[in-house]
Amino acid sequence: MIRHTVVLKLKYPKGSVKEQDFLAAAQKLEALPGVQKFECLRQIGKKNNFDFGLSMEFENMEAYEGYNNHPEHTSFVQTYWLRDVADFLEIDYEPYA
Amino acid sequence: MIRHTVVLKLKYPKGSVKEQDFLAAAQKLEALPGVQKFECLRQIGKKNNFDFGLSMEFENMEAYEGYNNHPEHTSFVQTYWLRDVADFLEIDYEPYA
Repeated sequence: MIRHTVVLKLKYPKGSVKEQDFLAAAQKLEALPGVQKFECLRQIGKKNNFDFGLSMEFENMEAYEGYNNHPEHTSFVQTYWLRDVADFLEIDYEPYA
Repeated sequence: MIRHTVVLKLKYPKGSVKEQDFLAAAQKLEALPGVQKFECLRQIGKKNNFDFGLSMEFENMEAYEGYNNHPEHTSFVQTYWLRDVADFLEIDYEPYA
């Protein structure tokens, strides 16, 4: 199992239409092949400046790469991510033991 | 649901005894009241410098604060965290919708 997560801050005010548009587009990534346990999350901790998170799991690295290279993912990155995201951090996990 | 996560880098070489000692101590936090879905994770992404992660869930903020203030948690912080952790980032989530 590989869990791909990204925590992010948008360029737009909280609750704005642009924020909603971005999150709606992001949530469509759930439908891509190989994506399991997709979650759209609100970052609520006070110890960083990020506002949202996405989390999903893949069975293995091949499935993860298939998602990364999928045209709907690369289109999302070009159309929404590069335009809308002010700051982000990608964190990928696998079980320790 | 609140998911408390922390991604971290230790001061010690990968695979060292000190690394194993820290992770063994961290994994005992699973037994504390209110802790659900505890996970000890390996950070495998190339886009940050962290090596491990801990993830756990709480039913609500009261349960989270109970964990934070629990003497076994504060003792872990004093005994292991402050001594062993070189860098970390706490990220806390709740479901977006």
